[in-house]
Amino acid sequence: MKTFELLEQVFNGNPRAIARAISLVENNSEETPEVMKAVFSRAGRALVIGITGSPGAGKSSLVDKLAGFYRDQSQRVGIIAVDPSSPFSGGAILGDRIRMAALGTDENVFIRSMATRGNLGGLSRATVDAVTILDAAGFQKIIVETVGVGQDEVEIVKAADVTVVVLVPGMGDDVQAIKAGIMEIGDIFVINKADREGVLRTERELRSLLELSGGRPDGWNPPIVKTIAVENKGIEELAKAIDDYSKFQQSNQNIERRKAIAKWRLLELLRERLLAEVLSKNGTNEKLEELALKVAERKMNPYSAVEEILKK
Amino acid sequence: MKTFELLEQVFNGNPRAIARAISLVENNSEETPEVMKAVFSRAGRALVIGITGSPGAGKSSLVDKLAGFYRDQSQRVGIIAVDPSSPFSGGAILGDRIRMAALGTDENVFIRSMATRGNLGGLSRATVDAVTILDAAGFQKIIVETVGVGQDEVEIVKAADVTVVVLVPGMGDDVQAIKAGIMEIGDIFVINKADREGVLRTERELRSLLELSGGRPDGWNPPIVKTIAVENKGIEELAKAIDDYSKFQQSNQNIERRKAIAKWRLLELLRERLLAEVLSKNGTNEKLEELALKVAERKMNPYSAVEEILKK
Repeated sequence: MKTFELLEQVFNGNPRAIARAISLVENNSEETPEVMKAVFSRAGRALVIGITGSPGAGKSSLVDKLAGFYRDQSQRVGIIAVDPSSPFSGGAILGDRIRMAALGTDENVFIRSMATRGNLGGLSRATVDAVTILDAAGFQKIIVETVGVGQDEVEIVKAADVTVVVLVPGMGDDVQAIKAGIMEIGDIFVINKADREGVLRTERELRSLLELSGGRPDGWNPPIVKTIAVENKGIEELAKAIDDYSKFQQSNQNIERRKAIAKWRLLELLRERLLAEVLSKNGTNEKLEELALKVAERKMNPYSAVEEILKK
Repeated sequence: MKTFELLEQVFNGNPRAIARAISLVENNSEETPEVMKAVFSRAGRALVIGITGSPGAGKSSLVDKLAGFYRDQSQRVGIIAVDPSSPFSGGAILGDRIRMAALGTDENVFIRSMATRGNLGGLSRATVDAVTILDAAGFQKIIVETVGVGQDEVEIVKAADVTVVVLVPGMGDDVQAIKAGIMEIGDIFVINKADREGVLRTERELRSLLELSGGRPDGWNPPIVKTIAVENKGIEELAKAIDDYSKFQQSNQNIERRKAIAKWRLLELLRERLLAEVLSKNGTNEKLEELALKVAERKMNPYSAVEEILKK
């Protein structure tokens, strides 16, 4: 299929075409710039919701129920689950398959996992590109779910319009939560599994942490929403909080935030392009393998090895 | 101070010099290649232990107790806590300060947090460099603690000689654990807070997951160690498991693993160097700001913007 035909089908919301376009950008194929330039001009209407939190916080259930809520309002929903998993197998997407079985029959819900692929990075770039594709394909709500609080995950979630941080009662070691820096990225906090013991304590601690931080520069006061995702409780309140923040942001004309996101995106793209250019030169891959072996055998240090690659 | 004087003091184990050398590589200062080439030739003797797991799993306590165990054996211990935290404040290291107060008076324990700094990445490279510096400074055990299960964190932990994955009972949503891909990176599993309800269930589930995965290509069977870190329970068993795996690995002559780590390290370094080179050119930073604004205003797409930077 020609790229322009594929793009036409993407703009028509064809799920197979969308999946194919995302695969193209995920694999950073040579069509990527053409695809992305075309979709960028069509994008910009969706509300992108980033949801993050530790493994075990129940993010997937929450995302599924939130998607269901938006579906009841006849909105089309895209879900991207960032899965920085197996560096060996290229990503074990067991959970994804389970979810596809539950939600996948609804053609107005598009679910996709994005996983780390090998050494070349580009996960954050590919994820943000996939969001843009779903946006251009006419999904009104796009939910990006990330596992964990790693550097890339934080960046991906920051690139969303609204960032939701999910906690559970009694996770203990609350200092860890501060350390993970999630306090600063959350526009909305969710305490999921709110039927568990310790919910009041977690809420109290969260409130005092938010107060301690002295408030946000933009004046937004992040609400705390209690949910029991598996019982579909608190989902409407969460959707309302998301809507509130989205309106606040629009009236706030937050161009600085959008500029910071754009800059991050440009740097990611630049990094990837520069590396790809060097590696595409004849013989560089062989050289890299040879030098990696030398470094592994401690016959050479990594800095001299990189200088040798750059000299070439 | 001249770099060679600094290096001499690093090799003598001077904590201030070590801290300064780590700051140099963390900030990617111009002395970095010189420092790293020198330390690389002195490194290679330490055992590097990577410890990962979700926030709230009690990693910090476990690391502190394990460090205490090694100190009782008169070993010098370096601890690097990777803290991919606040993209805004440059890292709130509250937890670090708390720990420094407890362990920091022992000059045979060196503790350092590594945090994300701005948009330029390089956290994984800087962390692995810091490990090499501690290695060259004569620390026998180097513990690298990472929060969360993000892409960078997985890579950092994979670069260790032994990788310990910390779980807690009753985290629920066990599919999440598979999704996060931690099953494949763990050489040793710890169930911490083993006095909590659900420890047997977690252990059983973990065992069946390990069996389901069909075993590792190298034939190692990852042990499950139960600990109650805050009560100093199970630490000796953990140290024994670490020692066992270290011996297994040595007899196994795992050059492929070391080569894969070296290759990842070279790619990280290459990526960083290439980006720094482009950004160091006159006017590129201004151009980047200008283009980021255009992208934020949706007047330009990121791919065309990057092409414009590269054309320059």
